Amino acid sequence: MLSITAKQTFLKLGRSWTCCICNFESRFMRTQETTKDYNLCMKPQVQTEIPGPQTRKLTKEMDKIQNTAVLSLFCNFEKSKLNYLVDADGNILLDCFQQISTLPLGYNHPTILEQAHQSASTIANRPAIGYFPSSDFPALVTNSLLKAAPKGLTQVVTMGCGSCANENAYKSLFFWYMKKQRGEEVPADVHDIAYTSCMKNQAPGSPKLSILSFDGGFHGRTIGTLSTTHSKALHKLDVPAFDWPVAPFPKLKYPLEEYGRENAQEEARCLAMVEDLIEQWKDTRPVAGMVIEPIQAEGGDNHASDDFFRKLRNIATKNKIGFICDEVQTGMAITGRMWAHDYWGLETPPDIVTFAKKMLSGGFYYSDDFRWKHGYRVVNTWMGEPIKLMLLEKVLEVVQSQNLLLQAEITGHYIMNGLRQLEKLFPELLSCIRGRGLFIAATVENGKREKFVTNLLQKGVLIGKCGDHSVRLRPSLLFTPAHADILLEKVEETARDMRS
Amino acid sequence: MLSITAKQTFLKLGRSWTCCICNFESRFMRTQETTKDYNLCMKPQVQTEIPGPQTRKLTKEMDKIQNTAVLSLFCNFEKSKLNYLVDADGNILLDCFQQISTLPLGYNHPTILEQAHQSASTIANRPAIGYFPSSDFPALVTNSLLKAAPKGLTQVVTMGCGSCANENAYKSLFFWYMKKQRGEEVPADVHDIAYTSCMKNQAPGSPKLSILSFDGGFHGRTIGTLSTTHSKALHKLDVPAFDWPVAPFPKLKYPLEEYGRENAQEEARCLAMVEDLIEQWKDTRPVAGMVIEPIQAEGGDNHASDDFFRKLRNIATKNKIGFICDEVQTGMAITGRMWAHDYWGLETPPDIVTFAKKMLSGGFYYSDDFRWKHGYRVVNTWMGEPIKLMLLEKVLEVVQSQNLLLQAEITGHYIMNGLRQLEKLFPELLSCIRGRGLFIAATVENGKREKFVTNLLQKGVLIGKCGDHSVRLRPSLLFTPAHADILLEKVEETARDMRS
Repeated sequence: MLSITAKQTFLKLGRSWTCCICNFESRFMRTQETTKDYNLCMKPQVQTEIPGPQTRKLTKEMDKIQNTAVLSLFCNFEKSKLNYLVDADGNILLDCFQQISTLPLGYNHPTILEQAHQSASTIANRPAIGYFPSSDFPALVTNSLLKAAPKGLTQVVTMGCGSCANENAYKSLFFWYMKKQRGEEVPADVHDIAYTSCMKNQAPGSPKLSILSFDGGFHGRTIGTLSTTHSKALHKLDVPAFDWPVAPFPKLKYPLEEYGRENAQEEARCLAMVEDLIEQWKDTRPVAGMVIEPIQAEGGDNHASDDFFRKLRNIATKNKIGFICDEVQTGMAITGRMWAHDYWGLETPPDIVTFAKKMLSGGFYYSDDFRWKHGYRVVNTWMGEPIKLMLLEKVLEVVQSQNLLLQAEITGHYIMNGLRQLEKLFPELLSCIRGRGLFIAATVENGKREKFVTNLLQKGVLIGKCGDHSVRLRPSLLFTPAHADILLEKVEETARDMRS
Repeated sequence: MLSITAKQTFLKLGRSWTCCICNFESRFMRTQETTKDYNLCMKPQVQTEIPGPQTRKLTKEMDKIQNTAVLSLFCNFEKSKLNYLVDADGNILLDCFQQISTLPLGYNHPTILEQAHQSASTIANRPAIGYFPSSDFPALVTNSLLKAAPKGLTQVVTMGCGSCANENAYKSLFFWYMKKQRGEEVPADVHDIAYTSCMKNQAPGSPKLSILSFDGGFHGRTIGTLSTTHSKALHKLDVPAFDWPVAPFPKLKYPLEEYGRENAQEEARCLAMVEDLIEQWKDTRPVAGMVIEPIQAEGGDNHASDDFFRKLRNIATKNKIGFICDEVQTGMAITGRMWAHDYWGLETPPDIVTFAKKMLSGGFYYSDDFRWKHGYRVVNTWMGEPIKLMLLEKVLEVVQSQNLLLQAEITGHYIMNGLRQLEKLFPELLSCIRGRGLFIAATVENGKREKFVTNLLQKGVLIGKCGDHSVRLRPSLLFTPAHADILLEKVEETARDMRS
């Protein structure tokens, strides 16, 4: 529920709009703001079937070179703007998915474009950051990543993408765990069997340790992270995996506030299973740590309570295992907080927080304890790229100056209320409206999901899918109640069409 | 040995220089070419100790945020130019390492800068390539990656870095192998146990298959690739690994042409071991394929003969397992061929060729047979980035118009001859000069390597290290005999200093 304080703060900023649900008065974005290019708000304009003839033609061409099974649309990025994606056929779509949630300020944001224009040298001279960084790199990290650092985490390292972020976070976890076991980071004796055995992929140098992950979790598609990914069988099928434990993730009923008691029971069951698994694995492949998303995204936008995560963190602490929070999808303001785990009120922060997507660079924050001392342990030739941090610095400036955290919270509240209204009107189509900030999903049961998404796209609104039966919104941080009105209107039209 | 034809072709281009070794006459780059900015050739200028006070100060600052154990120098990329790196202290260094061999045309090449300047929109709107590519993406892939495609490989997919390229190449290998086993890419029966077992990391869905790799090989630091990396224990220590077979890589004597018989014996021994391992692993973790570098780079610039690789490819074919050629470091013209495996004269091309570094994007080429049909099997949110291919397109244009493949071969020949001369003068320091094109290394035994590299850097020449006792050159493709003269002069000075 949106707090009164949030409403008041927002009003102080001189922005308001009329919320059709809670009567919170507003003319937000409709008046002075709308006229500004960067708050562009307009109805989508669809001229062809989608995918249109151009996308179909180009897909055919592309398919000669590579698999195109997941290809949705070819785009015209030059013409796209903020919340609006222009596709290859000239259709103007309200984009609520934003390149799988990777563009924090939408398309061609003037501040971001300007920075890109000024950065030709940075782009042309991509460095091996870990070895030969530019002189302004420490300041750049300080002004970008550290400004967004989760409370309690002082260290950060960049990587190219979310998978690499998690792969390296897992390695850091193992280093930390083994350092505790042996009392030193690496064996002082250069003839220690650990050094020779690891070169042959054998214990003790390659220890039989594990990472506990959760049913429905998604942490990447590289082979290491894939042993912790459990969202879709097709992601994993035929790839050798580590025999690592998989705990149940709570299957909660929505809205959460209506099912407090049942949900608490389900969470208690899952927490007990986590403790059991840690115990069971102790003698075969001890659990060095666990990895979890604050909201399981790819797996279906599955939520758990703040209390669940607090207890999970405590289980990790109690068992002296690491706690990795994967915020690749939930991070960077979309939930209305910089990090989704900010909601939990943890006593001890996560040991590691991984990021990518809207952070523009992959990487992870980690606590002092998790810092490794020896070189070459966590490194990569490129390790991401400075230009990403230069753009991130600008994104953070816009987020702060435009108060986008608060806007995400308020707009999210507005969308949730709207969707819940529609859920009542179309119970045969929509259920389980859930979300935090702009990170919102709904269940579309009975095999109607594909049709729903396609029909909505035909009306000019692009949304994503997740899990087996859900649709997800991942709009840019510039999404306002005015855009939400368009979204809600088109969802309603689509639902009516599907009923008739 | 440099071919007469190569010399003649080069002369036809109106470029020549006097080679101190083979008396191949020249004024190459010293006259008309030198004056052109893009062929800048000058002595390095060292003003401070290296690392200088600025680098030391910045390292201290950076170390508060992250481990800096491998950090060499802070750089001033704005001032750097082509083969010359300007460090944070204003020292102008002849850079023979080029950001770990990732900059094909050195720093601030005007053509690359120009492209970067024009590409602000591409940079600001980084797409999720696999899902929502730009309309010009098929043409872009055709004009960049496909222009450089290894003979016989028609398919290509981009990834963010070399590790991700290999991770996904391995997955494609497993998909291909299992498709052969079951006669279809995925089980048609949706209730097949493969689908449920893989979600729990168990066979048969997560099959007990392996990839055969080689002692001394390096294929990345993510957890999957790490089970095939065997260059340094510190890369692997404490990270759980798959029990996959490791074959010996030939330990050859240099110069290769002088030890033909012994080297052939050593290679035969290794080939026999490969066949043995495939047989041994058959019942526990069948070998789905093997992965090898044409020249083991990180592991010490270890060479094997073209004949060895041809036979290895045949072993793969005979045993119906995949053959992955990791050209992350050897690819993109540095050996004097677009791909190092072009030298081998293979009857059947490799099944997969992976790339990154000087290709600017990670990714891999693969044969039609290895193509997967179902979506979500090899994908990533970003999958690299279009701007990298736009720059690569320009690089390929320059390589062709400036005849840089030939220049790499000739300059490499020139450097090799020079180093062999120095090897005779300083046998206590230098040995085993080996290389192909500009991909050149030498052994610096008896614990003198660190001092040699440091002293050379003090004279303004930056080179890399590899293996336990070797140094490596990875200059840009713009490196000419004129630059080689400076390199050789400084190596000679350093060797003299170290003797006295």
